Amino acid sequence: MASVNENYLKLQGSYLFSTIAKKVKEYETAHPDANIIRLGIGDVTKPLAPAIIDALHNAVDEMAAASTFRGYAPDLGYEFLREKIAKNDYEARGIDISPDEIFVSDGAKSDTSNIQEIFGYDNRVAVCDPVYPVYVDSNVMAGRAGEFDSALGRYKKLIYMPCTKENDFVPEFPKGPVDIIYLCFPNNPTGMTITKERLQDFVDRAIKRKAVILYDSAYEAYISDPSLPHSIYECEGANECAIEFRSFSKNAGFTGLRLGFTVVPKTLKLSGVSLHSLWARRHGTKFNGAPYIVQRAGEAVYSPEGKEQVKKQVEGYMKNASFLKAGLKEAGFTVYGGENAPYIWLSTPGNMTSWDFFDLLLSKVNIVGTPGVGFGPMGEGYFRLTAFNTVENSALAIERIKAAHLM
Amino acid sequence: MASVNENYLKLQGSYLFSTIAKKVKEYETAHPDANIIRLGIGDVTKPLAPAIIDALHNAVDEMAAASTFRGYAPDLGYEFLREKIAKNDYEARGIDISPDEIFVSDGAKSDTSNIQEIFGYDNRVAVCDPVYPVYVDSNVMAGRAGEFDSALGRYKKLIYMPCTKENDFVPEFPKGPVDIIYLCFPNNPTGMTITKERLQDFVDRAIKRKAVILYDSAYEAYISDPSLPHSIYECEGANECAIEFRSFSKNAGFTGLRLGFTVVPKTLKLSGVSLHSLWARRHGTKFNGAPYIVQRAGEAVYSPEGKEQVKKQVEGYMKNASFLKAGLKEAGFTVYGGENAPYIWLSTPGNMTSWDFFDLLLSKVNIVGTPGVGFGPMGEGYFRLTAFNTVENSALAIERIKAAHLM
Repeated sequence: MASVNENYLKLQGSYLFSTIAKKVKEYETAHPDANIIRLGIGDVTKPLAPAIIDALHNAVDEMAAASTFRGYAPDLGYEFLREKIAKNDYEARGIDISPDEIFVSDGAKSDTSNIQEIFGYDNRVAVCDPVYPVYVDSNVMAGRAGEFDSALGRYKKLIYMPCTKENDFVPEFPKGPVDIIYLCFPNNPTGMTITKERLQDFVDRAIKRKAVILYDSAYEAYISDPSLPHSIYECEGANECAIEFRSFSKNAGFTGLRLGFTVVPKTLKLSGVSLHSLWARRHGTKFNGAPYIVQRAGEAVYSPEGKEQVKKQVEGYMKNASFLKAGLKEAGFTVYGGENAPYIWLSTPGNMTSWDFFDLLLSKVNIVGTPGVGFGPMGEGYFRLTAFNTVENSALAIERIKAAHLM
Repeated sequence: MASVNENYLKLQGSYLFSTIAKKVKEYETAHPDANIIRLGIGDVTKPLAPAIIDALHNAVDEMAAASTFRGYAPDLGYEFLREKIAKNDYEARGIDISPDEIFVSDGAKSDTSNIQEIFGYDNRVAVCDPVYPVYVDSNVMAGRAGEFDSALGRYKKLIYMPCTKENDFVPEFPKGPVDIIYLCFPNNPTGMTITKERLQDFVDRAIKRKAVILYDSAYEAYISDPSLPHSIYECEGANECAIEFRSFSKNAGFTGLRLGFTVVPKTLKLSGVSLHSLWARRHGTKFNGAPYIVQRAGEAVYSPEGKEQVKKQVEGYMKNASFLKAGLKEAGFTVYGGENAPYIWLSTPGNMTSWDFFDLLLSKVNIVGTPGVGFGPMGEGYFRLTAFNTVENSALAIERIKAAHLM
């Protein structure tokens, strides 16, 4: 008699953004005339840059002729893309990552959720609190998280690293035993960053403890402070203890195109076993590559025109972030993030819970955000707004918030 | 101290097709003038049909304007595609599958390797021998296969269902305890098919035994015999015991575009737990959808022009299959498959092993095929050729084989 993976039954409720979507839909049905401004889900709104569109059209034309048609892609991704990544994202920053340490994929969500497969089921996993839910849920599904403690709002076997205003939303390295540590900087959801010194400290401790850091830098394109690290490999020794995830979703608007990559240095080994070869095996066995035309689109992101165009898009989103942050401050809110990341993390007024504030914002000013508690119990009393809407809507949102005197 | 998933270390050698690629590369380096004909990997060669190219260009243009730009796709896939699938692949055959029982993905390889995640780790898994290696390897990685017995060439905890000339390459339902059964018809690698009666028998027994059938029908478009089932849901009760996988790779040439789908009926439950809801949770948590432009390309496969064009492509490949099969027979080979599938399965001459025949074919007539033993020990003494090359190359291959008097 077949049975289900019981770990799935330990997952809590439905995915955060599905719940939000449901609430918004209900509100819209009850108030069909409401002009709702969506600052909730981290989805981009600007169309793909012209250089990317051109590359897509060209690649589609190649697929129309037998002489240029492409079938199955190489396991790791096309070399034309992996070389561009190695050169622009790493070599240009003085980091030694070779093209064959880069695995092209259909996005950082897939990679950050699949990576846990190559580790033992008994590995102790540490995550930030608040945290991007995918790191937690993928480990729950694999059985590493244990039971959910509803009083604490936490899984019993996970190690939670609190990110609070007291520690500037940068966690401490876990004191007890730990094997795998997920970090995301610039951070989703707080929009806060980590200094190179603090990140180096994580790397040093991980090496000492023989732990592996899974570093999600999907938002590195939003860094404007030149002192902040874009890659964990800017830290000495990171190629012995860290795997890095990148995405084309937020720097170039690929949320609907699906492209990302993972770096697994060949020097990264556990008891002599190369994680690069395990990930290569996973990639070759359970995945068939990102579409050729999308990999060509990714290549165009690194062309001179592409670089210029996506930089302007990021600047545009960051103007929204500054505007939102300044406006919220003027309205009396305590606000974090939003300077090197497209996310604003605000304290809810009074002692309001995150979900109460969600309901208030939706009903009173027709703005959708994300309740901080949805990212973990330490997110309670916080709320996330994103900079991905239009400049007009961002301005309108601030106008409404100010007028409503929510504080 | 972090540790690796030890199950990965039980995997045997590298992936079959990587080994073949390496051997071919070595031969090419030694013989740079050889005109090698590739009938090995099951990759298509015909360019995408005009209707699909048009749909791709149109969708790319939509991504260039803010008003029509698409970000994250809906979890299950776009409704425009799921509706077309439900109507054309199921309703048109009198099968009741609703659009929300269809999960759009980046291909059947991903889905058939990921599906095992929703089942308990102690489920007993049955596979055909020979078998598409992905079913086996994904279960090895998850720990369901146990150790590899190198004397037998089999994993100790898997249940192997022999597919031999004696049973027409259609396996018997396992006699002992079994929980999950992988079936693939039309079959990769043998190119053989299953009758509706035999498939109904599998369904009936699966229901009695509370087992789940994972049915891979990626090659259904190649069926010409009208009596053969295209979907397992043509069998009564299958919606209580079966999950079905489909692909756009082989019917419409999407190997480089990446698109497939999985059907999980809402009526399929284990101890009251809906597999549909588990797979939905997996999809929502660990995957971010197939690219919008590729889903539009998939939709075009179902347009009147698209249908006509992809049908012609399939017919073209099947002409190659007939030609290869007839030619091999004339050359004295014993040949199976190739009538309702793009694969030819031949007995190697004399007592030659599959790999010896691979080497002979490569060195003597410069033809690349796939050794049967690469798909399992019962494939020893067999060899797979595919119909996916051009008609010219298929003809040239037969010419060379006849001239070489290999039998």
